[in-house]
Amino acid sequence: MGQEFLKIKDPEDAEDIISTLPILKKVEKVSLVEAYRRVLAEDVYATIDLPPFRRAAMDGYALKSKDTFNTSEDNPAQLKLLDVVTAGKIPQMKVEHGACIEVSTGAPIPEGADAVVMIEYAEKEDDYVSVLESVPLNANITAQGSDVKEGELLLEEGERITADKIGVLSAIAMQLVPVYTQPKVAVISTGNEIIKHQEKLDYAKIYDINSYTLSNAVKACGCIPIHSEIVKDDYNSLKNAILKFKDADIIITSGGTSAGTGDNLKVVLDELGDVLIHGIAVKPGKPTIVGLIKTNSVNHQIIFGLPGYPVSALMIFHIFVAPFLRKMACIGENEVERNIKQYKLSRRYIPSRGRKQYLLVKIKDGQAHPILKDSGAITSLAEADGYFIIPKNVEMIEQGTLVDVYSLDN
Amino acid sequence: MGQEFLKIKDPEDAEDIISTLPILKKVEKVSLVEAYRRVLAEDVYATIDLPPFRRAAMDGYALKSKDTFNTSEDNPAQLKLLDVVTAGKIPQMKVEHGACIEVSTGAPIPEGADAVVMIEYAEKEDDYVSVLESVPLNANITAQGSDVKEGELLLEEGERITADKIGVLSAIAMQLVPVYTQPKVAVISTGNEIIKHQEKLDYAKIYDINSYTLSNAVKACGCIPIHSEIVKDDYNSLKNAILKFKDADIIITSGGTSAGTGDNLKVVLDELGDVLIHGIAVKPGKPTIVGLIKTNSVNHQIIFGLPGYPVSALMIFHIFVAPFLRKMACIGENEVERNIKQYKLSRRYIPSRGRKQYLLVKIKDGQAHPILKDSGAITSLAEADGYFIIPKNVEMIEQGTLVDVYSLDN
Repeated sequence: MGQEFLKIKDPEDAEDIISTLPILKKVEKVSLVEAYRRVLAEDVYATIDLPPFRRAAMDGYALKSKDTFNTSEDNPAQLKLLDVVTAGKIPQMKVEHGACIEVSTGAPIPEGADAVVMIEYAEKEDDYVSVLESVPLNANITAQGSDVKEGELLLEEGERITADKIGVLSAIAMQLVPVYTQPKVAVISTGNEIIKHQEKLDYAKIYDINSYTLSNAVKACGCIPIHSEIVKDDYNSLKNAILKFKDADIIITSGGTSAGTGDNLKVVLDELGDVLIHGIAVKPGKPTIVGLIKTNSVNHQIIFGLPGYPVSALMIFHIFVAPFLRKMACIGENEVERNIKQYKLSRRYIPSRGRKQYLLVKIKDGQAHPILKDSGAITSLAEADGYFIIPKNVEMIEQGTLVDVYSLDN
Repeated sequence: MGQEFLKIKDPEDAEDIISTLPILKKVEKVSLVEAYRRVLAEDVYATIDLPPFRRAAMDGYALKSKDTFNTSEDNPAQLKLLDVVTAGKIPQMKVEHGACIEVSTGAPIPEGADAVVMIEYAEKEDDYVSVLESVPLNANITAQGSDVKEGELLLEEGERITADKIGVLSAIAMQLVPVYTQPKVAVISTGNEIIKHQEKLDYAKIYDINSYTLSNAVKACGCIPIHSEIVKDDYNSLKNAILKFKDADIIITSGGTSAGTGDNLKVVLDELGDVLIHGIAVKPGKPTIVGLIKTNSVNHQIIFGLPGYPVSALMIFHIFVAPFLRKMACIGENEVERNIKQYKLSRRYIPSRGRKQYLLVKIKDGQAHPILKDSGAITSLAEADGYFIIPKNVEMIEQGTLVDVYSLDN
């Protein structure tokens, strides 16, 4: 016995293969409330001028600027107060020479006025206002369309709709927002030893971990997880489970890929589709499978078979699967960058030879402390803040070396 | 007329006042699926050993290590293969001297065995296995409880439940997770000029922006927004709206705080509770109100009255409200830090005098470009990637100065 990895790949080649997998972008329309954190699928143009009318930028008095020519505190201009226009009200009167109309911030500028003096520079007494400074033409007036003209580009396809972008869409009252459809990802835990959380923990069994960690990691990539039942590690169970998820864009399995398990996923994929990668030369996570199932003449389902150990599964997910899911969900790579931070290594570390390695670390006292547990250890997940990459042929990393730590939280 | 800011505060004092506002932490239990991204409210201890039984760390053959003493490729040990135990199966036989049992990764170690030889170092032929190396005691065996012993601390109160922490909770099959209750935040847009997105845009009106931006910004702080109707800017409408949200922990209004609007929020708060801050000496956002309403003998509602301009409202939210909401939602300050990044300023900038200023910037070509628009401009929201802080008495910031840019996306 023993497993043959016929298509074992270097990690760089595996990344290349995964990055060229076919992606089908779908678009849907959602309400503005649902649009938060989604990715815009079309450019958005202004359907109205912003602001939609000429308005006051400050609380004050709308007037003719000429009437304030040469005025000062010692020589104020006396203007007759005709009316008051608050925000939301339509002005009923015109500003004539020698007169003014009180306006509040956001109120429309009455006809005839060409400037607003701020209340701080004016004094009201009965029906008259003394203007204490000379007011330039257009002062404190925001012209219609001065921010955006109808037809102008507001937001671009591919932008993530954050709270501030929601504000832009609100300004033009966009009620249905075109966004990229979130890919559906079926998450399957395989293994005869895996049981549901509701079950009694009999000897030889362990509780399901991977479907929970991976479902949530899938969410963090902007995809929708379909949390499946646990699947027995035999050919028929696995094949039936995969066929059940015909609607999923992607299927992620964990377990059932290491030697001694019969390598069922490979056998199933050989029958239903293509095995593209069978083994990646990394630590942890060597027994990783990537495959493709043709569901009809245009569509493919992509399958990632991850190792069964929770740490290995989550690491391989982060390194090889997450970038692909984010790409499929149309999330820009720029969003990931901020989750890399440099730390000094707390101690000397001697990597295992021959494979590129991803080492979990805990950040403490501003240093990256390697977590030296095997990938079966759950506590390494509890402690880990991230990981760094050790290239294939490094013999030793000195204490104090600056390493790029990738957050596990994305 | 003109508004008196009786309790105008320096921003540092405002931060102090806000940071000492009373916080009531509530705890609830949610399912593991709902626990993602929530904050753990209690320490979690292991309820079982992990792993729960002695298991194989590798695919191989369980044996007595003594039987492999002095073996090598030239001098292999011949062991009788008694049985095969895959993961999830209960061993039916004992390992005797001169015998072995095939085990797969994760399978229980049969009684009598004290080591596992990896399949790579063994050769199977019919009912016999040749072991090609000497196997030390306990090799490739993970002892019961070696990762975690029942009763050990697994996760600490206050930790955010990320995908990897979900894995830890799954390992012990925790079905109801104690988490801090997410504060409920009512978000109210006030203003007679504000209309709903479904309405026709008549002259003098603008579409509601703030309730959408602020609701989503509230979500990003781990709180639950209650999106309200638009409220007219008069005493009775505002008072009724506030009284309607008795269940909210926090109420955020925007608009109705600048001079010329009658300062209705202050008047309402003077009647229903206390005004703690009436004006903050910052740009933008001077007309900001913070108040407290006693809802019964133990509970308080906290009210933030933000300026009406969308940019000002969102900036004041980020700077003064968001840290408080995150604290109330029990989210650690360490999560915010990663959203600060240093950039060089693209051009010389001369700040306005006398007030601490928050300047929006766009990040382009690795530089921070100031956005020089007034706070009524929606496009500044569309362009902005973040802001940096300019202290009160700075006269000029040179081109190329390194500035700390705070992301608007948190």
